[in-house]
Amino acid sequence: MPAQSTPERVGFLGLGIMGSRMAANVARAGFPLTVWTHTAGKAERWAGEHGATAVATPAEAAERSDIVVSMVVDGEQVASVLLGHDGVIEAGRPGLLCVEMSTIAPPDTRRIGAALGERGVRMLDAPVTGSAPRAQEGSLTIMVGGEPEDFARARPLLEAMGGLITHVGDLGQGERLKLINNALGAANAAAVAEALLLAEASGIDLDAFVEVVSSGSGASAQLTLKSGSMREHDYAPLFKTAHMLKDVRLCLEEAQAAGVPFPSAAHARDLLTATMARGLGEQDYAAIIEAAEGLAGRRL
Amino acid sequence: MPAQSTPERVGFLGLGIMGSRMAANVARAGFPLTVWTHTAGKAERWAGEHGATAVATPAEAAERSDIVVSMVVDGEQVASVLLGHDGVIEAGRPGLLCVEMSTIAPPDTRRIGAALGERGVRMLDAPVTGSAPRAQEGSLTIMVGGEPEDFARARPLLEAMGGLITHVGDLGQGERLKLINNALGAANAAAVAEALLLAEASGIDLDAFVEVVSSGSGASAQLTLKSGSMREHDYAPLFKTAHMLKDVRLCLEEAQAAGVPFPSAAHARDLLTATMARGLGEQDYAAIIEAAEGLAGRRL
Repeated sequence: MPAQSTPERVGFLGLGIMGSRMAANVARAGFPLTVWTHTAGKAERWAGEHGATAVATPAEAAERSDIVVSMVVDGEQVASVLLGHDGVIEAGRPGLLCVEMSTIAPPDTRRIGAALGERGVRMLDAPVTGSAPRAQEGSLTIMVGGEPEDFARARPLLEAMGGLITHVGDLGQGERLKLINNALGAANAAAVAEALLLAEASGIDLDAFVEVVSSGSGASAQLTLKSGSMREHDYAPLFKTAHMLKDVRLCLEEAQAAGVPFPSAAHARDLLTATMARGLGEQDYAAIIEAAEGLAGRRL
Repeated sequence: MPAQSTPERVGFLGLGIMGSRMAANVARAGFPLTVWTHTAGKAERWAGEHGATAVATPAEAAERSDIVVSMVVDGEQVASVLLGHDGVIEAGRPGLLCVEMSTIAPPDTRRIGAALGERGVRMLDAPVTGSAPRAQEGSLTIMVGGEPEDFARARPLLEAMGGLITHVGDLGQGERLKLINNALGAANAAAVAEALLLAEASGIDLDAFVEVVSSGSGASAQLTLKSGSMREHDYAPLFKTAHMLKDVRLCLEEAQAAGVPFPSAAHARDLLTATMARGLGEQDYAAIIEAAEGLAGRRL
Protein backbone atom coordinates (compact mmCIF):
# COMPACT_ATOMS: atom_id res chain seq x y z
CA MET A 1 0.00 0.00 0.00
CA PRO A 2 1.61 3.31 -1.03
CA ALA A 3 1.96 6.12 1.50
CA GLN A 4 -0.95 8.55 1.50
CA SER A 5 1.25 11.19 -0.12
CA THR A 6 1.66 9.02 -3.26
CA PRO A 7 -1.81 8.73 -4.76
CA GLU A 8 -2.55 5.45 -6.51
CA ARG A 9 -3.19 5.41 -10.22
CA VAL A 10 -6.92 5.12 -10.91
CA GLY A 11 -8.78 3.64 -13.89
CA PHE A 12 -12.41 4.71 -14.25
CA LEU A 13 -14.86 2.63 -16.32
CA GLY A 14 -18.14 4.31 -17.23
CA LEU A 15 -18.71 8.05 -17.76
CA GLY A 16 -22.50 8.27 -17.59
CA ILE A 17 -24.56 10.76 -15.54
CA MET A 18 -23.10 9.53 -12.26
CA GLY A 19 -19.70 8.22 -13.43
CA SER A 20 -18.61 11.40 -15.23
CA ARG A 21 -19.27 13.49 -12.12
CA MET A 22 -17.56 11.00 -9.81
CA ALA A 23 -14.51 10.69 -12.08
CA ALA A 24 -14.20 14.48 -12.25
CA ASN A 25 -13.85 14.56 -8.47
CA VAL A 26 -11.21 11.81 -8.64
CA ALA A 27 -9.20 13.89 -11.15
CA ARG A 28 -9.65 17.03 -9.06
CA ALA A 29 -8.30 15.21 -5.97
CA GLY A 30 -5.03 14.59 -7.80
CA PHE A 31 -5.23 10.88 -8.64
CA PRO A 32 -3.51 10.05 -11.97
CA LEU A 33 -6.57 9.02 -13.98
CA THR A 34 -7.23 6.77 -16.98
CA VAL A 35 -10.80 6.61 -18.30
CA TRP A 36 -12.81 4.32 -20.53
CA THR A 37 -16.46 4.38 -21.44
CA HIS A 38 -18.62 2.38 -23.81
CA THR A 39 -19.45 5.20 -26.24
CA ALA A 40 -16.61 5.67 -28.76
CA GLY A 41 -14.98 9.12 -28.68
CA LYS A 42 -16.63 10.18 -25.43
CA ALA A 43 -13.69 9.18 -23.21
CA GLU A 44 -11.22 11.16 -25.36
CA ARG A 45 -13.29 14.34 -25.10
CA TRP A 46 -13.81 13.88 -21.38
CA ALA A 47 -10.11 13.14 -20.77
CA GLY A 48 -9.10 16.28 -22.67
CA GLU A 49 -11.33 18.42 -20.49
CA HIS A 50 -10.27 16.86 -17.17
CA GLY A 51 -6.56 16.16 -17.61
CA ALA A 52 -7.00 12.40 -17.80
CA THR A 53 -5.86 9.72 -20.27
CA ALA A 54 -8.44 7.92 -22.44
CA VAL A 55 -8.00 4.29 -23.49
CA ALA A 56 -9.87 1.95 -25.84
CA THR A 57 -10.56 -0.99 -23.52
CA PRO A 58 -11.11 -1.74 -19.83
CA ALA A 59 -8.01 -3.98 -19.97
CA GLU A 60 -5.85 -1.03 -21.04
CA ALA A 61 -7.26 1.04 -18.19
CA ALA A 62 -6.38 -1.75 -15.77
CA GLU A 63 -2.84 -2.04 -17.15
CA ARG A 64 -2.20 1.62 -16.38
CA SER A 65 -3.83 1.60 -12.90
CA ASP A 66 -3.50 0.38 -9.32
CA ILE A 67 -7.23 0.68 -8.60
CA VAL A 68 -10.03 0.31 -11.17
CA VAL A 69 -13.49 1.81 -10.50
CA SER A 70 -16.52 0.54 -12.43
CA MET A 71 -19.72 2.59 -12.62
CA VAL A 72 -21.94 1.12 -15.31
CA VAL A 73 -25.62 0.20 -15.72
CA ASP A 74 -26.23 -3.36 -14.54
CA GLY A 75 -24.78 -6.74 -13.67
CA GLU A 76 -24.36 -7.72 -17.30
CA GLN A 77 -22.26 -4.64 -18.04
CA VAL A 78 -20.21 -5.13 -14.89
CA ALA A 79 -19.45 -8.73 -15.88
CA SER A 80 -18.52 -7.53 -19.36
CA VAL A 81 -16.08 -4.77 -18.35
CA LEU A 82 -14.46 -6.81 -15.58
CA LEU A 83 -14.48 -10.40 -16.93
CA GLY A 84 -15.27 -10.12 -20.66
CA HIS A 85 -13.13 -9.82 -23.80
CA ASP A 86 -10.74 -6.86 -23.34
CA GLY A 87 -11.99 -6.74 -19.74
CA VAL A 88 -10.03 -5.88 -16.61
CA ILE A 89 -9.24 -9.54 -15.96
CA GLU A 90 -6.98 -9.63 -19.04
CA ALA A 91 -4.66 -7.25 -17.20
CA GLY A 92 -5.33 -9.00 -13.91
CA ARG A 93 -2.40 -9.29 -11.50
CA PRO A 94 -1.88 -9.54 -7.75
CA GLY A 95 -2.33 -6.14 -6.09
CA LEU A 96 -4.83 -4.77 -8.57
CA LEU A 97 -8.00 -3.62 -6.75
CA CYS A 98 -11.45 -3.38 -8.39
CA VAL A 99 -13.98 -1.04 -6.76
CA GLU A 100 -17.39 -1.91 -8.20
CA MET A 101 -19.81 1.01 -7.61
CA SER A 102 -22.79 0.04 -9.80
CA THR A 103 -25.88 -1.53 -8.19
CA ILE A 104 -26.05 -5.26 -9.03
CA ALA A 105 -27.22 -8.48 -7.38
CA PRO A 106 -25.06 -9.62 -4.43
CA PRO A 107 -24.60 -13.16 -5.85
CA ASP A 108 -23.26 -11.63 -9.09
CA THR A 109 -20.87 -9.50 -7.04
CA ARG A 110 -19.52 -12.54 -5.23
CA ARG A 111 -19.22 -14.57 -8.46
CA ILE A 112 -17.27 -11.78 -10.16
CA GLY A 113 -15.12 -11.32 -7.06
CA ALA A 114 -14.26 -15.03 -7.06
CA ALA A 115 -13.28 -14.95 -10.75
CA LEU A 116 -11.05 -11.92 -10.20
CA GLY A 117 -9.59 -13.55 -7.11
CA GLU A 118 -8.23 -16.42 -9.19
CA ARG A 119 -5.91 -13.88 -10.81
CA GLY A 120 -4.99 -12.31 -7.47
CA VAL A 121 -7.20 -9.28 -8.15
CA ARG A 122 -8.97 -7.85 -5.07
CA MET A 123 -12.53 -6.53 -5.16
CA LEU A 124 -14.79 -4.24 -3.15
CA ASP A 125 -18.46 -3.56 -3.85
CA ALA A 126 -19.20 0.08 -3.12
CA PRO A 127 -22.64 1.14 -4.38
CA VAL A 128 -23.79 4.70 -3.75
CA THR A 129 -26.91 6.61 -2.84
CA GLY A 130 -27.48 10.20 -3.83
CA SER A 131 -28.38 11.69 -7.17
CA ALA A 132 -26.34 13.60 -9.76
CA PRO A 133 -26.01 16.78 -7.65
CA ARG A 134 -24.47 14.84 -4.79
CA ALA A 135 -22.19 13.00 -7.23
CA GLN A 136 -21.10 16.40 -8.55
CA GLU A 137 -20.31 17.88 -5.14
CA GLY A 138 -18.57 14.69 -3.96
CA SER A 139 -21.00 14.03 -1.12
CA LEU A 140 -22.39 10.61 -2.10
CA THR A 141 -23.17 8.02 0.55
CA ILE A 142 -21.00 4.96 -0.20
CA MET A 143 -21.61 1.56 1.43
CA VAL A 144 -18.70 -0.84 1.07
CA GLY A 145 -18.38 -4.61 1.24
CA GLY A 146 -15.08 -6.47 1.21
CA GLU A 147 -11.93 -7.02 3.23
CA PRO A 148 -11.01 -4.32 5.78
CA GLU A 149 -7.50 -3.85 4.31
CA ASP A 150 -8.92 -3.29 0.84
CA PHE A 151 -11.41 -0.81 2.29
CA ALA A 152 -8.59 1.06 4.04
CA ARG A 153 -6.62 1.18 0.81
CA ALA A 154 -9.58 2.50 -1.21
CA ARG A 155 -10.69 5.05 1.37
CA PRO A 156 -8.66 8.06 0.06
CA LEU A 157 -10.14 7.42 -3.40
CA LEU A 158 -13.69 7.01 -2.05
CA GLU A 159 -13.30 10.22 -0.04
CA ALA A 160 -12.84 12.08 -3.31
CA MET A 161 -16.37 10.99 -4.29
CA GLY A 162 -18.34 10.58 -1.08
CA GLY A 163 -19.38 12.15 2.19
CA LEU A 164 -20.56 9.27 4.37
CA ILE A 165 -18.37 6.22 3.57
CA THR A 166 -19.14 3.11 5.58
CA HIS A 167 -17.71 -0.41 5.63
CA VAL A 168 -20.71 -2.70 6.13
CA GLY A 169 -19.31 -6.25 5.85
CA ASP A 170 -17.91 -8.83 3.43
CA LEU A 171 -17.93 -8.64 -0.35
CA GLY A 172 -21.53 -8.23 -1.54
CA GLN A 173 -22.79 -6.62 1.66
CA GLY A 174 -22.61 -3.12 0.17
CA GLU A 175 -25.01 -4.27 -2.58
CA ARG A 176 -27.21 -6.05 -0.05
CA LEU A 177 -27.53 -2.94 2.09
CA LYS A 178 -28.29 -0.83 -0.97
CA LEU A 179 -31.09 -3.22 -1.97
CA ILE A 180 -32.59 -3.20 1.53
CA ASN A 181 -32.43 0.61 1.60
CA ASN A 182 -34.24 0.81 -1.72
CA ALA A 183 -36.86 -1.76 -0.68
CA LEU A 184 -37.48 0.18 2.54
CA GLY A 185 -37.83 3.34 0.44
CA ALA A 186 -40.32 1.61 -1.85
CA ALA A 187 -42.35 0.40 1.15
CA ASN A 188 -42.41 3.91 2.59
CA ALA A 189 -43.41 5.32 -0.82
CA ALA A 190 -46.35 2.90 -0.98
CA ALA A 191 -47.49 4.01 2.47
CA VAL A 192 -47.14 7.69 1.50
CA ALA A 193 -49.25 7.14 -1.64
CA GLU A 194 -52.00 5.41 0.35
CA ALA A 195 -51.95 8.04 3.11
CA LEU A 196 -52.21 10.88 0.57
CA LEU A 197 -55.25 9.24 -0.99
CA LEU A 198 -56.95 8.83 2.37
CA ALA A 199 -56.14 12.39 3.41
CA GLU A 200 -57.55 13.75 0.16
CA ALA A 201 -60.67 11.58 0.41
CA SER A 202 -61.14 12.82 3.98
CA GLY A 203 -61.12 16.45 2.83
CA ILE A 204 -57.83 17.32 4.52
CA ASP A 205 -55.83 20.12 2.88
CA LEU A 206 -52.86 18.28 1.31
CA ASP A 207 -50.38 21.14 1.71
CA ALA A 208 -51.19 21.09 5.40
CA PHE A 209 -50.95 17.30 5.44
CA VAL A 210 -47.43 17.25 3.99
CA GLU A 211 -46.28 20.13 6.20
CA VAL A 212 -47.56 18.56 9.41
CA VAL A 213 -46.54 14.95 8.73
CA SER A 214 -43.05 16.08 7.64
CA SER A 215 -42.53 17.33 11.18
CA GLY A 216 -44.26 14.32 12.76
CA SER A 217 -43.73 10.63 13.45
CA GLY A 218 -44.96 9.76 9.93
CA ALA A 219 -42.09 11.64 8.27
CA SER A 220 -39.87 9.88 5.74
CA ALA A 221 -37.41 10.65 2.96
CA GLN A 222 -40.07 9.36 0.56
CA LEU A 223 -42.66 11.86 1.83
CA THR A 224 -40.14 14.65 1.25
CA LEU A 225 -38.87 13.37 -2.10
CA LYS A 226 -42.02 12.02 -3.77
CA SER A 227 -45.26 13.49 -2.34
CA GLY A 228 -45.00 16.51 -4.65
CA SER A 229 -44.56 14.36 -7.78
CA MET A 230 -47.39 12.08 -6.66
CA ARG A 231 -49.77 15.02 -6.17
CA GLU A 232 -48.80 16.55 -9.53
CA HIS A 233 -48.84 13.19 -11.33
CA ASP A 234 -45.46 14.36 -12.67
CA TYR A 235 -43.13 11.40 -13.15
CA ALA A 236 -40.10 12.95 -14.85
CA PRO A 237 -37.66 10.14 -14.11
CA LEU A 238 -35.09 10.60 -11.36
CA PHE A 239 -35.22 6.88 -10.55
CA LYS A 240 -37.29 4.75 -12.89
CA THR A 241 -40.12 2.44 -11.82
CA ALA A 242 -38.45 -0.43 -13.71
CA HIS A 243 -35.18 0.05 -11.80
CA MET A 244 -36.91 0.37 -8.45
CA LEU A 245 -38.95 -2.75 -9.12
CA LYS A 246 -35.76 -4.62 -10.12
CA ASP A 247 -34.11 -3.62 -6.84
CA VAL A 248 -37.13 -4.58 -4.72
CA ARG A 249 -37.31 -7.96 -6.47
CA LEU A 250 -33.58 -8.57 -5.92
CA CYS A 251 -34.06 -7.65 -2.25
CA LEU A 252 -36.95 -10.10 -1.91
CA GLU A 253 -34.83 -12.83 -3.55
CA GLU A 254 -32.14 -12.13 -0.99
CA ALA A 255 -34.76 -12.20 1.76
CA GLN A 256 -36.08 -15.54 0.56
CA ALA A 257 -32.56 -16.96 0.42
CA ALA A 258 -31.98 -15.74 3.99
CA GLY A 259 -35.34 -17.16 5.12
CA VAL A 260 -36.61 -13.77 6.31
CA PRO A 261 -40.07 -12.52 5.27
CA PHE A 262 -40.33 -8.84 4.26
CA PRO A 263 -44.07 -8.27 3.75
CA SER A 264 -43.79 -4.46 3.57
CA ALA A 265 -41.43 -4.78 0.59
CA ALA A 266 -43.61 -7.48 -0.98
CA HIS A 267 -46.55 -5.07 -0.88
CA ALA A 268 -44.40 -2.39 -2.56
CA ARG A 269 -43.36 -4.93 -5.22
CA ASP A 270 -47.01 -5.63 -6.00
CA LEU A 271 -47.85 -1.93 -6.34
CA LEU A 272 -44.74 -1.36 -8.51
CA THR A 273 -45.73 -4.36 -10.66
CA ALA A 274 -49.14 -2.75 -11.16
CA THR A 275 -47.37 0.52 -11.99
CA MET A 276 -45.25 -1.24 -14.63
CA ALA A 277 -48.41 -2.82 -16.06
CA ARG A 278 -49.72 0.71 -16.67
CA GLY A 279 -46.79 1.34 -19.02
CA LEU A 280 -45.00 3.56 -16.49
CA GLY A 281 -41.75 1.56 -16.21
CA GLU A 282 -39.65 4.34 -17.74
CA GLN A 283 -41.26 6.97 -15.50
CA ASP A 284 -40.19 7.87 -11.98
CA TYR A 285 -41.40 5.44 -9.32
CA ALA A 286 -43.51 8.25 -7.83
CA ALA A 287 -45.93 6.76 -10.38
CA ILE A 288 -46.67 4.15 -7.68
CA ILE A 289 -49.49 6.57 -6.81
CA GLU A 290 -51.24 5.41 -10.01
CA ALA A 291 -51.43 1.85 -8.69
CA ALA A 292 -52.76 3.06 -5.33
CA GLU A 293 -55.30 5.22 -7.19
CA GLY A 294 -56.31 2.25 -9.32
CA LEU A 295 -56.95 0.15 -6.21
CA ALA A 296 -58.91 2.93 -4.52
CA GLY A 297 -60.81 3.81 -7.68
CA ARG A 298 -60.16 7.54 -7.19
CA ARG A 299 -57.56 10.12 -8.22
CA LEU A 300 -55.65 12.54 -6.03
CA MET B 1 -62.69 39.02 19.34
CA PRO B 2 -60.55 41.14 21.69
CA ALA B 3 -57.53 43.03 20.36
CA GLN B 4 -54.30 41.09 20.53
CA SER B 5 -53.12 43.33 23.34
CA THR B 6 -55.93 42.04 25.59
CA PRO B 7 -55.26 38.33 26.06
CA GLU B 8 -58.35 36.19 26.43
CA ARG B 9 -58.98 34.38 29.69
CA VAL B 10 -58.03 30.72 29.39
CA GLY B 11 -59.33 27.66 31.23
CA PHE B 12 -57.11 24.56 31.08
CA LEU B 13 -58.54 21.10 31.77
CA GLY B 14 -56.01 18.32 32.40
CA LEU B 15 -52.55 18.73 33.97
CA GLY B 16 -50.92 15.43 33.03
CA ILE B 17 -47.47 14.95 31.50
CA MET B 18 -48.38 16.97 28.40
CA GLY B 19 -51.06 19.27 29.81
CA SER B 20 -49.01 20.59 32.74
CA ARG B 21 -46.17 21.61 30.40
CA MET B 22 -48.53 23.17 27.86
CA ALA B 23 -50.47 25.10 30.54
CA ALA B 24 -47.20 26.42 32.00
CA ASN B 25 -46.39 27.99 28.62
CA VAL B 26 -49.88 29.51 28.48
CA ALA B 27 -49.33 31.11 31.91
CA ARG B 28 -45.85 32.29 30.91
CA ALA B 29 -47.30 33.96 27.79
CA GLY B 30 -49.48 36.17 30.01
CA PHE B 31 -52.93 34.63 29.54
CA PRO B 32 -55.07 34.87 32.73
CA LEU B 33 -55.33 31.17 33.54
CA THR B 34 -57.78 28.97 35.43
CA VAL B 35 -56.91 25.27 35.79
CA TRP B 36 -58.73 22.08 36.65
CA THR B 37 -57.53 18.50 36.69
CA HIS B 38 -59.05 15.21 37.74
CA THR B 39 -56.76 14.51 40.70
CA ALA B 40 -57.95 16.39 43.80
CA GLY B 41 -55.42 18.89 45.20
CA LYS B 42 -53.13 18.77 42.17
CA ALA B 43 -54.63 21.82 40.46
CA GLU B 44 -54.24 23.95 43.64
CA ARG B 45 -50.54 23.10 43.97
CA TRP B 46 -49.92 23.67 40.27
CA ALA B 47 -51.83 26.98 40.31
CA GLY B 48 -49.80 28.21 43.27
CA GLU B 49 -46.55 27.52 41.45
CA HIS B 50 -47.61 29.09 38.16
CA GLY B 51 -49.73 32.10 39.18
CA ALA B 52 -53.01 30.54 38.04
CA THR B 53 -56.37 29.98 39.73
CA ALA B 54 -57.53 26.44 40.55
CA VAL B 55 -61.17 25.44 40.46
CA ALA B 56 -63.13 22.33 41.45
CA THR B 57 -65.01 21.59 38.21
CA PRO B 58 -64.65 22.07 34.44
CA ALA B 59 -67.85 24.17 34.55
CA GLU B 60 -66.23 26.63 36.97
CA ALA B 61 -63.19 26.88 34.68
CA ALA B 62 -65.49 27.66 31.75
CA GLU B 63 -67.39 30.32 33.75
CA ARG B 64 -64.15 32.20 34.37
CA SER B 65 -62.78 31.83 30.81
CA ASP B 66 -63.19 32.95 27.17
CA ILE B 67 -61.39 29.89 25.77
CA VAL B 68 -61.26 26.42 27.38
CA VAL B 69 -58.47 23.96 26.46
CA SER B 70 -58.95 20.24 27.15
CA MET B 71 -55.94 17.89 27.26
CA VAL B 72 -57.06 14.58 28.75
CA VAL B 73 -56.62 10.88 27.99
CA ASP B 74 -59.33 9.67 25.63
CA GLY B 75 -62.73 10.28 24.06
CA GLU B 76 -64.58 9.21 27.20
CA GLN B 77 -62.73 11.75 29.33
CA VAL B 78 -63.23 14.47 26.74
CA ALA B 79 -66.97 13.81 26.67
CA SER B 80 -67.02 13.86 30.47
CA VAL B 81 -65.21 17.19 30.98
CA LEU B 82 -67.03 18.94 28.13
CA LEU B 83 -70.55 17.46 28.22
CA GLY B 84 -70.84 15.62 31.57
CA HIS B 85 -72.08 16.62 35.02
CA ASP B 86 -70.19 19.80 36.10
CA GLY B 87 -68.80 19.87 32.55
CA VAL B 88 -68.04 22.88 30.39
CA ILE B 89 -71.48 22.75 28.79
CA GLU B 90 -73.09 23.76 32.11
CA ALA B 91 -71.39 27.14 31.69
CA GLY B 92 -71.98 27.09 27.95
CA ARG B 93 -72.81 30.43 26.32
CA PRO B 94 -72.38 32.04 22.89
CA GLY B 95 -68.79 33.16 22.39
CA LEU B 96 -67.17 30.50 24.53
CA LEU B 97 -64.56 28.55 22.52
CA CYS B 98 -63.44 24.98 23.31
CA VAL B 99 -60.02 23.91 22.00
CA GLU B 100 -59.86 20.12 22.26
CA MET B 101 -56.21 18.97 22.12
CA SER B 102 -56.48 15.29 23.14
CA THR B 103 -56.40 12.57 20.45
CA ILE B 104 -59.88 11.06 19.96
CA ALA B 105 -61.98 9.63 17.14
CA PRO B 106 -63.13 12.20 14.55
CA PRO B 107 -66.82 11.14 14.83
CA ASP B 108 -66.66 11.73 18.61
CA THR B 109 -65.16 15.16 17.95
CA ARG B 110 -68.00 16.09 15.64
CA ARG B 111 -70.65 14.73 18.01
CA ILE B 112 -69.24 16.74 20.91
CA GLY B 113 -68.93 19.80 18.69
CA ALA B 114 -72.60 19.52 17.69
CA ALA B 115 -73.71 19.22 21.34
CA LEU B 116 -71.67 22.28 22.31
CA GLY B 117 -72.99 24.12 19.27
CA GLU B 118 -76.55 23.84 20.59
CA ARG B 119 -75.50 26.17 23.41
CA GLY B 120 -73.68 28.52 21.06
CA VAL B 121 -70.27 27.17 22.16
CA ARG B 122 -67.64 26.98 19.38
CA MET B 123 -65.14 24.12 19.08
CA LEU B 124 -61.79 23.42 17.46
CA ASP B 125 -59.98 20.08 17.48
CA ALA B 126 -56.26 20.69 17.83
CA PRO B 127 -54.32 17.49 18.55
CA VAL B 128 -50.55 17.68 18.88
CA THR B 129 -47.46 15.71 17.94
CA GLY B 130 -44.25 15.91 19.88
CA SER B 131 -43.32 14.46 23.24
CA ALA B 132 -42.94 16.02 26.70
CA PRO B 133 -39.70 17.92 25.87
CA ARG B 134 -41.37 19.67 22.94
CA ALA B 135 -44.43 20.42 25.10
CA GLN B 136 -42.08 21.96 27.66
CA GLU B 137 -40.27 24.20 25.18
CA GLY B 138 -43.52 25.21 23.46
CA SER B 139 -42.57 23.74 20.10
CA LEU B 140 -45.36 21.18 19.58
CA THR B 141 -46.80 20.60 16.13
CA ILE B 142 -50.53 21.43 16.31
CA MET B 143 -53.01 20.43 13.58
CA VAL B 144 -56.32 22.24 13.80
CA GLY B 145 -59.80 21.48 12.50
CA GLY B 146 -62.71 23.92 12.66
CA GLU B 147 -63.92 27.28 11.36
CA PRO B 148 -61.24 29.70 10.10
CA GLU B 149 -62.45 32.53 12.37
CA ASP B 150 -62.20 30.28 15.43
CA PHE B 151 -58.71 29.22 14.34
CA ALA B 152 -57.68 32.88 13.97
CA ARG B 153 -59.03 33.62 17.42
CA ALA B 154 -57.21 30.68 19.02
CA ARG B 155 -53.91 31.26 17.24
CA PRO B 156 -52.26 33.53 19.86
CA LEU B 157 -53.07 30.91 22.51
CA LEU B 158 -51.81 28.01 20.33
CA GLU B 159 -48.61 29.95 19.61
CA ALA B 160 -47.84 29.85 23.32
CA MET B 161 -47.73 26.02 23.07
CA GLY B 162 -46.65 25.17 19.54
CA GLY B 163 -44.11 25.74 16.80
CA LEU B 164 -45.78 24.56 13.61
CA ILE B 165 -49.52 25.40 13.87
CA THR B 166 -51.60 24.45 10.82
CA HIS B 167 -55.28 24.74 9.98
CA VAL B 168 -56.12 21.54 8.09
CA GLY B 169 -59.89 21.70 7.52
CA ASP B 170 -63.29 21.44 9.23
CA LEU B 171 -63.96 20.24 12.76
CA GLY B 172 -62.54 16.71 13.15
CA GLN B 173 -59.89 17.11 10.45
CA GLY B 174 -57.14 17.78 12.99
CA GLU B 175 -57.91 14.41 14.58
CA ARG B 176 -58.13 12.73 11.19
CA LEU B 177 -54.73 14.03 10.16
CA LYS B 178 -53.24 12.95 13.47
CA LEU B 179 -54.59 9.42 12.97
CA ILE B 180 -53.21 9.22 9.41
CA ASN B 181 -49.82 10.48 10.62
CA ASN B 182 -49.73 7.82 13.32
CA ALA B 183 -50.85 5.06 10.93
CA LEU B 184 -48.13 6.12 8.48
CA GLY B 185 -45.64 6.03 11.34
CA ALA B 186 -46.81 2.53 12.31
CA ALA B 187 -46.45 1.33 8.69
CA ASN B 188 -42.94 2.78 8.52
CA ALA B 189 -42.09 1.16 11.87
CA ALA B 190 -43.22 -2.24 10.56
CA ALA B 191 -41.00 -1.82 7.50
CA VAL B 192 -38.04 -0.77 9.67
CA ALA B 193 -38.47 -3.85 11.88
CA GLU B 194 -38.56 -6.17 8.87
CA ALA B 195 -35.57 -4.47 7.21
CA LEU B 196 -33.50 -4.71 10.40
CA LEU B 197 -34.22 -8.45 10.60
CA LEU B 198 -33.19 -8.99 7.00
CA ALA B 199 -30.02 -6.89 7.40
CA GLU B 200 -29.04 -8.86 10.50
CA ALA B 201 -29.77 -12.20 8.85
CA SER B 202 -27.65 -11.08 5.87
CA GLY B 203 -24.67 -10.40 8.12
CA ILE B 204 -24.72 -6.63 7.61
CA ASP B 205 -23.33 -4.57 10.49
CA LEU B 206 -26.43 -2.94 12.01
CA ASP B 207 -24.68 0.24 13.15
CA ALA B 208 -23.57 0.72 9.54
CA PHE B 209 -27.07 -0.14 8.33
CA VAL B 210 -28.75 2.55 10.45
CA GLU B 211 -26.08 5.11 9.63
CA VAL B 212 -26.28 4.57 5.87
CA VAL B 213 -30.06 4.24 5.55
CA SER B 214 -30.58 7.33 7.71
CA SER B 215 -28.83 9.33 5.00
CA GLY B 216 -30.55 7.43 2.17
CA SER B 217 -33.91 7.07 0.46
CA GLY B 218 -35.05 4.55 3.12
CA ALA B 219 -34.80 7.13 5.92
CA SER B 220 -37.79 7.80 8.17
CA ALA B 221 -38.64 9.32 11.52
CA GLN B 222 -39.37 5.76 12.68
CA LEU B 223 -35.87 4.58 11.75
CA THR B 224 -34.42 7.46 13.77
CA LEU B 225 -36.81 7.13 16.72
CA LYS B 226 -37.25 3.36 17.08
CA SER B 227 -34.41 1.33 15.52
CA GLY B 228 -32.31 1.68 18.69
CA SER B 229 -35.13 0.43 20.95
CA MET B 230 -35.87 -2.41 18.52
CA ARG B 231 -32.23 -3.53 18.50
CA GLU B 232 -31.98 -3.34 22.31
CA HIS B 233 -35.41 -4.91 22.83
CA ASP B 234 -35.92 -2.00 25.22
CA TYR B 235 -39.55 -0.90 25.23
CA ALA B 236 -39.68 1.72 28.00
CA PRO B 237 -42.94 3.36 26.94
CA LEU B 238 -42.83 6.70 25.15
CA PHE B 239 -45.96 5.78 23.18
CA LYS B 240 -47.63 2.54 24.16
CA THR B 241 -48.41 -0.31 21.76
CA ALA B 242 -52.05 -0.25 22.95
CA HIS B 243 -52.38 3.45 22.11
CA MET B 244 -50.68 3.10 18.72
CA LEU B 245 -52.90 0.13 17.85
CA LYS B 246 -55.98 2.15 18.90
CA ASP B 247 -54.94 5.00 16.59
CA VAL B 248 -54.21 2.70 13.63
CA ARG B 249 -57.58 1.00 14.11
CA LEU B 250 -59.38 4.36 14.25
CA CYS B 251 -57.54 5.40 11.07
CA LEU B 252 -58.60 2.20 9.31
CA GLU B 253 -62.21 2.78 10.41
CA GLU B 254 -61.99 6.26 8.90
CA ALA B 255 -60.45 4.78 5.75
CA GLN B 256 -63.24 2.23 5.46
CA ALA B 257 -65.85 4.95 5.93
CA ALA B 258 -64.15 6.99 3.20
CA GLY B 259 -63.93 3.93 0.93
CA VAL B 260 -60.14 4.14 0.65
CA PRO B 261 -57.96 1.05 1.21
CA PHE B 262 -54.80 1.53 3.29
CA PRO B 263 -53.01 -1.84 3.08
CA SER B 264 -49.73 -0.55 4.56
CA ALA B 265 -51.57 0.50 7.72
CA ALA B 266 -53.57 -2.76 7.77
CA HIS B 267 -50.28 -4.68 7.81
CA ALA B 268 -49.06 -2.53 10.70
CA ARG B 269 -52.33 -3.18 12.55
CA ASP B 270 -51.80 -6.92 12.20
CA LEU B 271 -48.23 -6.73 13.54
CA LEU B 272 -49.36 -4.49 16.43
CA THR B 273 -52.19 -6.94 17.17
CA ALA B 274 -49.59 -9.72 17.38
CA THR B 275 -47.49 -7.45 19.61
CA MET B 276 -50.47 -6.91 21.95
CA ALA B 277 -51.04 -10.68 22.01
CA ARG B 278 -47.52 -11.05 23.42
CA GLY B 279 -48.58 -9.00 26.46
CA LEU B 280 -46.67 -5.92 25.30
CA GLY B 281 -49.61 -3.48 25.13
CA GLU B 282 -48.25 -1.29 27.92
CA GLN B 283 -44.76 -1.25 26.36
CA ASP B 284 -43.54 1.13 23.67
CA TYR B 285 -44.68 0.21 20.16
CA ALA B 286 -41.03 -0.38 19.22
CA ALA B 287 -42.05 -3.83 20.52
CA ILE B 288 -43.52 -4.38 17.03
CA ILE B 289 -40.08 -5.92 16.37
CA GLU B 290 -41.22 -8.88 18.53
CA ALA B 291 -44.06 -9.64 16.11
CA ALA B 292 -41.70 -9.39 13.13
CA GLU B 293 -39.25 -11.67 14.95
CA GLY B 294 -42.04 -14.14 15.70
CA LEU B 295 -42.97 -14.28 12.02
CA ALA B 296 -39.34 -14.71 10.92
CA GLY B 297 -38.57 -17.21 13.67
CA ARG B 298 -35.36 -15.40 14.61
CA ARG B 299 -34.24 -12.63 16.97
CA LEU B 300 -32.27 -9.51 16.20
